[in-house]
Amino acid sequence: MSPSKSAVVLLSGGLDSATTAAIAMADGYTVHALSVDYGQRHRFELESARRVAEALQVAEHRVLSIDLAALGGSALTDDLDVPQDRSSEAMAEGIPVTYVPARNTILLSLALGYAEVLGVADLFLGVNAIDYSGYPDCRPEFLRAFEQVANLATKAGVEGTLRFRIHAPLVAMTKAEIIRRGLELGVDYGLTHTCYTPDDGGISCGRCDACQLRRQGFAEAGQVDPIPYLVD
Amino acid sequence: MSPSKSAVVLLSGGLDSATTAAIAMADGYTVHALSVDYGQRHRFELESARRVAEALQVAEHRVLSIDLAALGGSALTDDLDVPQDRSSEAMAEGIPVTYVPARNTILLSLALGYAEVLGVADLFLGVNAIDYSGYPDCRPEFLRAFEQVANLATKAGVEGTLRFRIHAPLVAMTKAEIIRRGLELGVDYGLTHTCYTPDDGGISCGRCDACQLRRQGFAEAGQVDPIPYLVD
Repeated sequence: MSPSKSAVVLLSGGLDSATTAAIAMADGYTVHALSVDYGQRHRFELESARRVAEALQVAEHRVLSIDLAALGGSALTDDLDVPQDRSSEAMAEGIPVTYVPARNTILLSLALGYAEVLGVADLFLGVNAIDYSGYPDCRPEFLRAFEQVANLATKAGVEGTLRFRIHAPLVAMTKAEIIRRGLELGVDYGLTHTCYTPDDGGISCGRCDACQLRRQGFAEAGQVDPIPYLVD
Repeated sequence: MSPSKSAVVLLSGGLDSATTAAIAMADGYTVHALSVDYGQRHRFELESARRVAEALQVAEHRVLSIDLAALGGSALTDDLDVPQDRSSEAMAEGIPVTYVPARNTILLSLALGYAEVLGVADLFLGVNAIDYSGYPDCRPEFLRAFEQVANLATKAGVEGTLRFRIHAPLVAMTKAEIIRRGLELGVDYGLTHTCYTPDDGGISCGRCDACQLRRQGFAEAGQVDPIPYLVD
């Protein structure tokens, strides 16, 4: 565990990215957290990101704004309806309307720019290909292809001063495994925000895909989810 | 020339991207132009992008804002000095301080998101690997790697409804060749903006690398550059 090891961690304020940041720290990285305000409906996430960053005592936390809603095309940034009360089978089918076009490519590009400025080679993001296989940009083959882009696109990559690596420690974990690991590392899931359609006070609906996956994960892990929900 | 062929063109307002947009139109594409206000010092570019988009009568022109200056690390967004009066030899050496970390990766990611929303498979950008070989993200190997990412990252790519292609028609052209081609296509270079360090009225310095390359290009093409400069 070298004191000079640093990483950029994409921190959304959700359960997965909070766990990812804790894992990076447990692996000995000094964490520079990056959150992106991309016009998502569930902006309580960003407040959660701030609280998680503070609780984990990361070295630095930056928030970048970009109005992806101006491009349209997703239930997370548009006026499209977010699905609720879907069965596990329905959630496993196809790519949901909550997919934000090119989101992880955009987020990783920004993380890459930040990492190059800092002189940091390691990028962490909390994608997960098992419980949420519907998003194409959560798959290992996407992450490997982006790693190649990172090393071709940058001054540091081309000059060989940095060899960029994309870390997705949760990619093959179930939600229950993620929660168990996070609790071992002391993550306070009461600070995290998961819901796509919270009420005006930020209380989670309990019915969107994200809430359902979270609640199933806590149930499977045999743990109590510390956040309140609008429905039981 | 199919009337339904559409493309997203990254339009900075500079000479290269204006020519690229004109080439896309000449190739029969309906052009959706995307400009990004990334906190660049030379924001007169964006005004030029608007004028160029209007002159070319593109189908649509969107401007996205993102504050890359918040990440730092470039003479184009920071308080670093932009080099002036450099010799051709000096310009050919290494990667200049005007390099913006991960810029083209970020711009292409945004263009990709926009293209997916529109249902458009073809992305154009005006990078050029000959006169400006110093930027790693202007090279064909970077563009090929990004094309792979695009097809792995997106719903449309994974579902096979779109096969994304990155077009960089200027990549192997000299500045003089670009200018000749643009003039053939009727591009009004008087509307474009190239300078990294214009004065308060937007007049080009004539001394930064970008101005020097432009002026050499016009000279080699045997054409008169229609824009004024602060120095002869």
